[in-house]
Amino acid sequence: MKYPSYPSISLSQLESFLLEDAPFGDTTSCALLPEGMTAKAILEFRENGVLAGGDEIFRLFSAHGVNVVMHAHDGDIIPAHSIIATLTGSVHKILLIERTALNLLSRMSGIATKTRKYVELLATKDQNCRIAATRKTAPGLRMLDKKAVIIGGADPHRFTLSDAILIKDTHRMLIDIGEAVSRAKSMFGYMYVEAEVESIDDGILAARAGADAIMADNMSPEQVIALIDALRREGLFDAVLFEVSGGISEKTLLQYAGIGVDRISIGNITHSVTAIDIGLEICLE
Amino acid sequence: MKYPSYPSISLSQLESFLLEDAPFGDTTSCALLPEGMTAKAILEFRENGVLAGGDEIFRLFSAHGVNVVMHAHDGDIIPAHSIIATLTGSVHKILLIERTALNLLSRMSGIATKTRKYVELLATKDQNCRIAATRKTAPGLRMLDKKAVIIGGADPHRFTLSDAILIKDTHRMLIDIGEAVSRAKSMFGYMYVEAEVESIDDGILAARAGADAIMADNMSPEQVIALIDALRREGLFDAVLFEVSGGISEKTLLQYAGIGVDRISIGNITHSVTAIDIGLEICLE
Amino acid sequence: MKYPSYPSISLSQLESFLLEDAPFGDTTSCALLPEGMTAKAILEFRENGVLAGGDEIFRLFSAHGVNVVMHAHDGDIIPAHSIIATLTGSVHKILLIERTALNLLSRMSGIATKTRKYVELLATKDQNCRIAATRKTAPGLRMLDKKAVIIGGADPHRFTLSDAILIKDTHRMLIDIGEAVSRAKSMFGYMYVEAEVESIDDGILAARAGADAIMADNMSPEQVIALIDALRREGLFDAVLFEVSGGISEKTLLQYAGIGVDRISIGNITHSVTAIDIGLEICLE
Amino acid sequence: MKYPSYPSISLSQLESFLLEDAPFGDTTSCALLPEGMTAKAILEFRENGVLAGGDEIFRLFSAHGVNVVMHAHDGDIIPAHSIIATLTGSVHKILLIERTALNLLSRMSGIATKTRKYVELLATKDQNCRIAATRKTAPGLRMLDKKAVIIGGADPHRFTLSDAILIKDTHRMLIDIGEAVSRAKSMFGYMYVEAEVESIDDGILAARAGADAIMADNMSPEQVIALIDALRREGLFDAVLFEVSGGISEKTLLQYAGIGVDRISIGNITHSVTAIDIGLEICLE
Amino acid sequence: MKYPSYPSISLSQLESFLLEDAPFGDTTSCALLPEGMTAKAILEFRENGVLAGGDEIFRLFSAHGVNVVMHAHDGDIIPAHSIIATLTGSVHKILLIERTALNLLSRMSGIATKTRKYVELLATKDQNCRIAATRKTAPGLRMLDKKAVIIGGADPHRFTLSDAILIKDTHRMLIDIGEAVSRAKSMFGYMYVEAEVESIDDGILAARAGADAIMADNMSPEQVIALIDALRREGLFDAVLFEVSGGISEKTLLQYAGIGVDRISIGNITHSVTAIDIGLEICLE
Amino acid sequence: MKYPSYPSISLSQLESFLLEDAPFGDTTSCALLPEGMTAKAILEFRENGVLAGGDEIFRLFSAHGVNVVMHAHDGDIIPAHSIIATLTGSVHKILLIERTALNLLSRMSGIATKTRKYVELLATKDQNCRIAATRKTAPGLRMLDKKAVIIGGADPHRFTLSDAILIKDTHRMLIDIGEAVSRAKSMFGYMYVEAEVESIDDGILAARAGADAIMADNMSPEQVIALIDALRREGLFDAVLFEVSGGISEKTLLQYAGIGVDRISIGNITHSVTAIDIGLEICLE
Repeated sequence: MKYPSYPSISLSQLESFLLEDAPFGDTTSCALLPEGMTAKAILEFRENGVLAGGDEIFRLFSAHGVNVVMHAHDGDIIPAHSIIATLTGSVHKILLIERTALNLLSRMSGIATKTRKYVELLATKDQNCRIAATRKTAPGLRMLDKKAVIIGGADPHRFTLSDAILIKDTHRMLIDIGEAVSRAKSMFGYMYVEAEVESIDDGILAARAGADAIMADNMSPEQVIALIDALRREGLFDAVLFEVSGGISEKTLLQYAGIGVDRISIGNITHSVTAIDIGLEICLE
Repeated sequence: MKYPSYPSISLSQLESFLLEDAPFGDTTSCALLPEGMTAKAILEFRENGVLAGGDEIFRLFSAHGVNVVMHAHDGDIIPAHSIIATLTGSVHKILLIERTALNLLSRMSGIATKTRKYVELLATKDQNCRIAATRKTAPGLRMLDKKAVIIGGADPHRFTLSDAILIKDTHRMLIDIGEAVSRAKSMFGYMYVEAEVESIDDGILAARAGADAIMADNMSPEQVIALIDALRREGLFDAVLFEVSGGISEKTLLQYAGIGVDRISIGNITHSVTAIDIGLEICLE
Repeated sequence: MKYPSYPSISLSQLESFLLEDAPFGDTTSCALLPEGMTAKAILEFRENGVLAGGDEIFRLFSAHGVNVVMHAHDGDIIPAHSIIATLTGSVHKILLIERTALNLLSRMSGIATKTRKYVELLATKDQNCRIAATRKTAPGLRMLDKKAVIIGGADPHRFTLSDAILIKDTHRMLIDIGEAVSRAKSMFGYMYVEAEVESIDDGILAARAGADAIMADNMSPEQVIALIDALRREGLFDAVLFEVSGGISEKTLLQYAGIGVDRISIGNITHSVTAIDIGLEICLE
Repeated sequence: MKYPSYPSISLSQLESFLLEDAPFGDTTSCALLPEGMTAKAILEFRENGVLAGGDEIFRLFSAHGVNVVMHAHDGDIIPAHSIIATLTGSVHKILLIERTALNLLSRMSGIATKTRKYVELLATKDQNCRIAATRKTAPGLRMLDKKAVIIGGADPHRFTLSDAILIKDTHRMLIDIGEAVSRAKSMFGYMYVEAEVESIDDGILAARAGADAIMADNMSPEQVIALIDALRREGLFDAVLFEVSGGISEKTLLQYAGIGVDRISIGNITHSVTAIDIGLEICLE
Repeated sequence: MKYPSYPSISLSQLESFLLEDAPFGDTTSCALLPEGMTAKAILEFRENGVLAGGDEIFRLFSAHGVNVVMHAHDGDIIPAHSIIATLTGSVHKILLIERTALNLLSRMSGIATKTRKYVELLATKDQNCRIAATRKTAPGLRMLDKKAVIIGGADPHRFTLSDAILIKDTHRMLIDIGEAVSRAKSMFGYMYVEAEVESIDDGILAARAGADAIMADNMSPEQVIALIDALRREGLFDAVLFEVSGGISEKTLLQYAGIGVDRISIGNITHSVTAIDIGLEICLE
Repeated sequence: MKYPSYPSISLSQLESFLLEDAPFGDTTSCALLPEGMTAKAILEFRENGVLAGGDEIFRLFSAHGVNVVMHAHDGDIIPAHSIIATLTGSVHKILLIERTALNLLSRMSGIATKTRKYVELLATKDQNCRIAATRKTAPGLRMLDKKAVIIGGADPHRFTLSDAILIKDTHRMLIDIGEAVSRAKSMFGYMYVEAEVESIDDGILAARAGADAIMADNMSPEQVIALIDALRREGLFDAVLFEVSGGISEKTLLQYAGIGVDRISIGNITHSVTAIDIGLEICLE
């Protein structure tokens, strides 16, 4: 799937990252480099990965008058040692922005790369199930983390606590599941209502109550198969989005493939990011 | 080393993380839970780790009227399945803040835990050398990432591009290293001047020029030993802070131990965080 | 329906409204009133209405040390000439906040009051259909406008452009409706997919394609009845949320009642607010 | 009167309205529309009105690379079904901004239209009296609401609580009116001092004390005529700006016309806005 | 005149000053001082001066849990070597805030002290004329600079470019002064209209046109006396506020005293501040 | 020394200064000047001074579409009555920005001018010693104040409380100086460690302990000479940066020249600024 055009954070938020890294400017360049000096620089992937953050660093360098030519785009698979962009302009500006740009690129590409790895692994055994992310993102980086997930080929799941209903044990201790679904649908008619379940009985109850999605939380592949069977027998399965969740890793992923699951959500895509090694090299002109 | 009292980000920045996760509130609890309902909840480490972020989540829950009793403090080593805090108060508030608090805790504790692993490994062979961090942090989270590094027992290195001088190849293509050091020291007399070097000759030149710190970048242990020897012969070694840097991992760390190095800086402490698995459980009262 | 506990904007946003009204303080009180003077004041509804904004003004006055006793709560129906709150404290503070508080209260109560009028009118003829709001809110006041809608008894509809999918003519010119629904559901599996339709044929196509909601836009009551019939015949009706929209007023509302519609969305609830007349009277002590 | 060139809020505040409406982008267009697609769109008044907000939406679309050609300008009277602007550019951007732009335009034009209605009505009977606004604006929208009032042809009155002195009953309970005026003028010599009065005696006292403006609050036309007569007899009338205020509507407005009043202030111009119906239509190219 | 109770900037703006000075905390105290250590500290005037900023530093220390006892209040004349406040609490917090608090106090007290010097000097010869400030304040500190002026006993003059009309040469090149005054009064009826003049003829024209205030700009005392005489002869003087302006210093001030001037505005009160020397001493407990 | 290219605050912070001065626009120009009117204007130094702030006002006017031609650059010595820039564009914009631009220029040039006076005075007797600034800057203006210091030719000293260690009496009451230095260097290895001393004994102890810099605080020239001698005898002098501090003025400066001091820090460069008189003149076209 081609990565679709996707919005991002505002330029002023990108600028705030730069300000965090250089509240009083780049003192080294200020002390050592002649005024008005220009240079060419390249951005290079030092290992294989999926590019994400290209849009963001393009905007950040451009806003400071640095000319950026992208040789690859968000979503592209980049082989190690490929140059993804060439920069030309003030060397003061390039060095000022360098670390902020690399931090953005290496985190976002790290998320996209890991996401894609799960996506491709799952596709080897199941064409209908998709990987989904969670709200386990770095504080302040929700939008960029979710965008990198989309670039990597997965479903971002809900963006915030405000935009979908998720009924958990806590809620179900207090109200009957049927009552819960109908209250939620009545109050917020345009939101998905998902119920987190840990047993077959609960799954049946939730689906019967009209939940749009069922999340089988921390259930073994066998339990999941049994729950899906039960839902099918009740004629409830087709009407719900069926998600499994809870500590699923590359090792266990395929145990949930090919059994009818619609989404497998994986927190570590965003909560445990491995940065892609990307470097910037200056070529004085 | 006991973790010292350390400042943090402002409450309003903590609140901005909450707003990111719930721009229109917690719709689920709003739809399902009775007004004014209270609960007890516990925060539990589900795996071993070093606690960091305790101060931050204490302030965040407290600011919303939730009573927090901490059972452990930042810097403590927490065994799996330990309860680190008990919360009491409005269940609406606890569920509203849950994910933001867990995201803060699991990232910061992940950084502190990995940091400490390196610190302890290094200490097995070298009592004088310390682990240091880099500026490879998540955009917007510099302060919290560096704080977690300090909690984990390492040196945070420079906080920003503004607060120390680092002379790189690019600069040295343009000016003689002696000239560079003296210009930097003249302009910014109160800043550390560090020179990044990739050869013995450069290291000698930089130290002679009066650099406060020498960073041996991507040099093998053998090369580092040779450089230190050369500096010692020239009587230059004692006056500098000697740092090694560049792709050092748990596997290669001890190769640089016990040879006279002062700091080993490791980017992956902060650029590739593995979140600690921490959960919140509600106990209705 | 009792108004449920609902979150709001942050105190710092409330403070920004105050700063807008008094960037250099209350010059009149500063010039005329003695320092440290205290007073009692009351907030009075001068006409009938539904109270909304009570939570917000409580927080704003309290944050400035003014003691607030609420005699009514958000969602209550307030008869003309009722006192809804008593304030005691610094007269400087009370006068500083007066206009900001009244502007908040009178707008939010205006929205809640109009909303409730529609809700009650609709309930006379249809117990299953609900009034819904739109995104036609005052710039910067989305959260407060939607909260007032909820307090008034209606469904807030989607909060933002990000949290649900709405397929319009523009989109359907470009892709087949079936393809559109499946692309949307695949990319954002946890979002409601609504299709705006203007004919029976389109309505059938959209429902067949799997849209979660159908919005009959600017269709006459007769056309809506015909579309619902057609959907029923196809066995598609029960699976969708059926909304009518487009210039519906108090005069035309009941024409859509009792015919099977689930939601009637009305822009003027929030885009054309009639403020409730609320006053603050100072009683010097 | 031609609308004069008038400043506005900053672009970053306009952007904040956009962010409020699309915190995670336009998910619908992202899922359905091809990247790089362009379109033409028109903005159309669907009913008669006075255009306001044209400057704001011009800046907002332009800042996102959408080309805007305005066919009418702020202050123009627009007949129903007139196209006021043509947009060309990225359809993703046009749809992203659509609702925010329409919300700005329809509110500001609503204020300008209602203002002008009062202005024209008053002009039929009094060429010297002007309509004035109040501080009863939507929280956060003071600048835009006042600008729309100016565009509609009325006096914006004071912008904030800081920029003019208004002596009310509360103040006069505590200090003699003469003392109050002289204290205010002494402390803030460059501010208008207005006294709110409810009787002829108070009006005389305030004018004698040197108030720059007298606000007859909630006084009947007969009382106002009597007060003006009394001021004239005392030779005090010409030196003051004479304002009437308090619940004046289209029905009662002309009762205060032609009797010597300088300003009639009307809260509902801004506190009870009726949005003008304005639409955006996409024409795919 | 007793200093009246006056508002100030928000706590969050005060906090932003602290963040500017310690973006990553107080590293010195963090490294050296034991956790939880408390201390007493005193704030001492090291030279004579008028206290201003007391309110601000009280709020800043208090917000961080430091107990503050003020021994003097804003507006008090403080002899050299007087203790104005005693602080008790966390030594980490006291040292963190020290420099920000002293910078606030020493600038505001510097402004209040210089202002009062002018005020007292003028009062030796003229009881009716007052010193006024200008808009020549430090960027970002308008509110605090004007507050210090008020505390020092002078008139703050207009706060911003938005809140009064000042007709200058530039404007008068384009429109007749009579036309200018009437246009301004018509558009913004509640604002003071001041005309800057440089000759007797212009002064007469402006006063005749109905200007509320006349500013004699860079005119000699003799010229000012002649202008006042001319205005008196025309019966125009009593109706205007008469201001002199332009490079007036302590040396020339009294030349303008006793001749009928209402305000003498002096830019250097705020544009050229001499800080009062104030120190903080820690007394370990 | 030629002024090096130096970063500055962001455009949005510059804009915030403009918003402070004109929250509701320039009402005077709005009322009096025709729309679309253009003009030429010049910025003129009315007294001798060093230009600083040129970069900032260039960006501010440019961002509003005013064309700016600079006739001088930051760091240039400007004779009285020199035109430093010519502006062409909308007269509304020029007058809107005028005061904000002048306030920036006159403060920054005032700092640069005073700094340079000290720098040149010191250079008459000592080529190796440099003037340094302190953290005694105006709240919110740290970056601009320090930039003006650099432009004036001095060392900015540490930017914030976070970026260097300064050991004071308070700390030394609690820990031995040797212990203090080693703790600081261990925790923050990349920061300068400076010790403030008031006696020869303390100076020797601090230097022996390995402090990078010694600040002789409030010591007489004789005491400083004695301390330097003592350090030289101990072979400790060459390894430290030697600073004197405390109430040094133009009168006393040269007493510390030529005796081996490296830095003389002077608070009044930034805490007591004398604005340079700079004017803007409009030339209508």
